[in-house]
Amino acid sequence: MTHASDKLRLQRQRGAFGHRVREHRLSAGLSQEELAEAAGIHRTYVSSLERGQRNVSLDNIIALARALKVDAAQLLEGI
Amino acid sequence: MTHASDKLRLQRQRGAFGHRVREHRLSAGLSQEELAEAAGIHRTYVSSLERGQRNVSLDNIIALARALKVDAAQLLEGI
Repeated sequence: MTHASDKLRLQRQRGAFGHRVREHRLSAGLSQEELAEAAGIHRTYVSSLERGQRNVSLDNIIALARALKVDAAQLLEGI
Repeated sequence: MTHASDKLRLQRQRGAFGHRVREHRLSAGLSQEELAEAAGIHRTYVSSLERGQRNVSLDNIIALARALKVDAAQLLEGI
């Protein structure tokens, strides 16, 4: 797989993850600020990860899931 | 939650993830070296993440899942 297609695949995966977090956040009725506070993550980080611009760590994936009251696995479904 | 209990929780989570990767690797009949190569990750990184010593990134979680031929969500089930 070429470097370019690799990069595209990674961007698509991060975008899918960001979209999933946003979906759960909205259905939980939380603002980005409220999610960030509950997860112990900076608000601007939540905003950029929802836009698919972050290679989020395991610790933060689990902190986000806890704050959204979903299983961490649910944030990766179908990705 | 105190800093110490936070640290313990993170270690427990990383350990559970490492254990899950190891389980899938063994049932796929792969050595750490073979998994590392298939996932495009260094062998020593696979060894330390299986021991729960790594805060693995989203990109690497997905690369590991692809190499193990499982969904990324399966690597986070129950964590």
